Amino acid sequence: MEVTLKYIAELTHGTVEGDDHVLIKGINSLFLAEKGEISFFSDPRLKDQVSITKASAIIVKKAISFYQGPQLIVADPSLTYAKVAAIFSPPIPRFPGISEKSIIGEGTRIGKGVSIYPLVYVGRESKIGNQVTLFPGVYIGDRVTVGKGTVIYPNVTIMSDCIIGKEVIVHAGTVIGSDGFGFTRDGERNVKIPQTGIVQIEDEVEIGAQNAIDRAALGKTVIKRGVKTDNLVQIGHNVVIDENTIIVAQVGIAGSTKIGKNVTIGGQVGIVDHIEIGDRVMIGSKSGVIKSIPADQVVSGIPTMPHRLWLKTRSHIRRLHEYSERLKELEDKVKELEEQLKRG
Amino acid sequence: MEVTLKYIAELTHGTVEGDDHVLIKGINSLFLAEKGEISFFSDPRLKDQVSITKASAIIVKKAISFYQGPQLIVADPSLTYAKVAAIFSPPIPRFPGISEKSIIGEGTRIGKGVSIYPLVYVGRESKIGNQVTLFPGVYIGDRVTVGKGTVIYPNVTIMSDCIIGKEVIVHAGTVIGSDGFGFTRDGERNVKIPQTGIVQIEDEVEIGAQNAIDRAALGKTVIKRGVKTDNLVQIGHNVVIDENTIIVAQVGIAGSTKIGKNVTIGGQVGIVDHIEIGDRVMIGSKSGVIKSIPADQVVSGIPTMPHRLWLKTRSHIRRLHEYSERLKELEDKVKELEEQLKRG
Amino acid sequence: MEVTLKYIAELTHGTVEGDDHVLIKGINSLFLAEKGEISFFSDPRLKDQVSITKASAIIVKKAISFYQGPQLIVADPSLTYAKVAAIFSPPIPRFPGISEKSIIGEGTRIGKGVSIYPLVYVGRESKIGNQVTLFPGVYIGDRVTVGKGTVIYPNVTIMSDCIIGKEVIVHAGTVIGSDGFGFTRDGERNVKIPQTGIVQIEDEVEIGAQNAIDRAALGKTVIKRGVKTDNLVQIGHNVVIDENTIIVAQVGIAGSTKIGKNVTIGGQVGIVDHIEIGDRVMIGSKSGVIKSIPADQVVSGIPTMPHRLWLKTRSHIRRLHEYSERLKELEDKVKELEEQLKRG
Repeated sequence: MEVTLKYIAELTHGTVEGDDHVLIKGINSLFLAEKGEISFFSDPRLKDQVSITKASAIIVKKAISFYQGPQLIVADPSLTYAKVAAIFSPPIPRFPGISEKSIIGEGTRIGKGVSIYPLVYVGRESKIGNQVTLFPGVYIGDRVTVGKGTVIYPNVTIMSDCIIGKEVIVHAGTVIGSDGFGFTRDGERNVKIPQTGIVQIEDEVEIGAQNAIDRAALGKTVIKRGVKTDNLVQIGHNVVIDENTIIVAQVGIAGSTKIGKNVTIGGQVGIVDHIEIGDRVMIGSKSGVIKSIPADQVVSGIPTMPHRLWLKTRSHIRRLHEYSERLKELEDKVKELEEQLKRG
Repeated sequence: MEVTLKYIAELTHGTVEGDDHVLIKGINSLFLAEKGEISFFSDPRLKDQVSITKASAIIVKKAISFYQGPQLIVADPSLTYAKVAAIFSPPIPRFPGISEKSIIGEGTRIGKGVSIYPLVYVGRESKIGNQVTLFPGVYIGDRVTVGKGTVIYPNVTIMSDCIIGKEVIVHAGTVIGSDGFGFTRDGERNVKIPQTGIVQIEDEVEIGAQNAIDRAALGKTVIKRGVKTDNLVQIGHNVVIDENTIIVAQVGIAGSTKIGKNVTIGGQVGIVDHIEIGDRVMIGSKSGVIKSIPADQVVSGIPTMPHRLWLKTRSHIRRLHEYSERLKELEDKVKELEEQLKRG
Repeated sequence: MEVTLKYIAELTHGTVEGDDHVLIKGINSLFLAEKGEISFFSDPRLKDQVSITKASAIIVKKAISFYQGPQLIVADPSLTYAKVAAIFSPPIPRFPGISEKSIIGEGTRIGKGVSIYPLVYVGRESKIGNQVTLFPGVYIGDRVTVGKGTVIYPNVTIMSDCIIGKEVIVHAGTVIGSDGFGFTRDGERNVKIPQTGIVQIEDEVEIGAQNAIDRAALGKTVIKRGVKTDNLVQIGHNVVIDENTIIVAQVGIAGSTKIGKNVTIGGQVGIVDHIEIGDRVMIGSKSGVIKSIPADQVVSGIPTMPHRLWLKTRSHIRRLHEYSERLKELEDKVKELEEQLKRG
């Protein structure tokens, strides 16, 4: 694939300074780019790399004087990078049609243009939409719906009755629809509470590798449109995650908690059950969230506090030993003062 | 499936106020319940939902005046819910017999009434008990024992020589019997310490999705009767977990640690190696346990402290900036007092 | 397998006190060892077990008076244990040749002496080296290289174009080469940044169960020679981990971070993106690393501080309630002193 810089400029609503007929066949970092590739400059620390890059053109927010080749000037270099990389990124490899080494259960309906690899298992009465791709080792239970254009990577498990939307991506090894963690005591025994609900994943969601997303006890666990999760994320039963929220790796969200729209949850955060996180909240990495958070807050810490307060607090934590000594010293001094005064 | 309320009352040792001939075909939350379903009321915050529920009967601990339909009065509504939900929850789907698209190694003995799906692999000289269910993508190594009635969900790996008890449930994607993390140094190189032990999982254990339970270096890693683990739990080599203990998601337990009976371990807790946690200990979410804990303690924090102390402590953490300023102020005042006194 | 103690002494460069003709057929702990097995003594707390052990010989650093049998005296008992255990540990079971129930893509080249189990999928134009073992449920994408002698356990996923070195071990359920977590905003939508790089894993690396190792956005995520990871570890895109580093379970390393050689990272540690951890750094369990760490530091805490400071700090955290009360008391006393002085 080779396109002109002009073509890229039109696609990204940018303007070119310099020759827009130059041919581009890939995108790469300043350091790695070869002749024929386009690169990008936005981090001032990489200024030196601009002078030595072999890239045939670069993407910038403002024209720069220290690069001789053609420059593509755009409002949002990061978004432009995503769009340009998409031109050159190799398409996902697809098995042509339905492998005869896959197993498709009775009553399951399969759309057009699907790619079902060998060693895939699909249960009964499921619906696999048009253009879906199922990689080897994928298990799809009974009565599952998978929407148009969705890609499910190897060794993913989707348990019965779950609903997966259109243009969803599920990365390798993830489990969707395992039983929620529900037990009640009968004397010393733990008695299982049947988990009879489902997981519903809406359109354009991307689920990372090795996630565990539990089915509801009753009703639905819901991941709404455009949510993106990183790897090794745990989502408990009956959780609802609203649109376009971002969840970084190793986060755990306990049962029945509701997460708003456009929320950002940092890595290794834990969120307790039955609370609500408002829209656009940002939660710093490794935080422990123990109560609901109103919209638009930025929080961090265990337990969470306003992020600005946490920035101050954490610098004090490491000074606790010093503070304890200063406290002791003051106590001695005050005692001495009291005695002086008593003595008159 | 449809049963009378009378039938349910007998099963749960409850008493009915109102018509016990009403037919029940399912269980649901107050909000979601339809005519013909039973619901349950115990959380006072849901009182308003009682007045609008369409449920044909409800489970309560004490009779309530603000509901018109028949009420099932029971000593333990939560346990009753579990039992009633079990009546209506759909049975686990079972492949009839042993799929000819599964692979069963030489010398492996298979019990009666098993369900072995396509794409299952069982190694040599293993024993698969009566009524066992193995879902697609399950790998069972050589000389493994799987007890009667056990269900192993898709894409689970059970390595050689491990022993799985009766009526065990293992959720999708879990790995049992991977090598423990044991290395020793030879200069700069890490030399592997062979992990020649096994994992033994006793009867009625339920293991969540995506767990990693390592085999012992020597001897056994043991998960005793009735233990329940949530998703993404890490259990190191030679760990012993005693009966009926509950382990919430993303917990990590390091090698050779012993966990008592009826312990509750909150989400994302980390527990160091070679310590002992006593019976009935409760460990709050996200805690870091660095030493043994005697029986019956309730602890939280990093590192753990008595839970009551943690509740106080955590409210002070967020005030550290204020405290540091008050400390500085006091120092100034004391200095001023000292100087006043010196001046006389 | 049965060898003389003399044979073991030669292999481990040790010296024997007592009869070196005794035959040894296994290794076990003092408590579990039977006649014919060798054991080891280094932890003084286990002295009592020496007197009751049935072991036919023991490994020690210095000769001990309270054991009657032959003793193997070695410079490094731990390393000796690893070597002796390796003699007796059962070989990894291998399918003979390439199962006709595996799927091998066009153009893939397979070396000599490989063991490819049933239910393995290998894509197109990959290279599988001599003596490689691929267990059931393994997925290898297109254009992947797997080096000589490497063992890949069940249900592992290795996505296209990744490079796996020689004598590598990958434990069950792990995912290598999933997309890095890269998105940029277009208004409220999250736009995927294509992840077109690879993962490269060098020789003699061991990757635990259930890891997630993301491919680079551009270029490579690199795990260098001799690195060992425990279970459930998350490694973000473009991370580089240098030789012989040890990463304990449930660690998360965010994108583009560089980890030095011989680093030790404790369980459940989180490390932010785009920083550098120097050679031989040791990071305590559950730490949160938010900035680069120079070589040879030992750190702990959230955020990290020197480990010695953390040891002091953590004992102060639990005394915060007491300190706050002492602070209040001092304020009262100082106020009283000020008033006394004012009154004259």
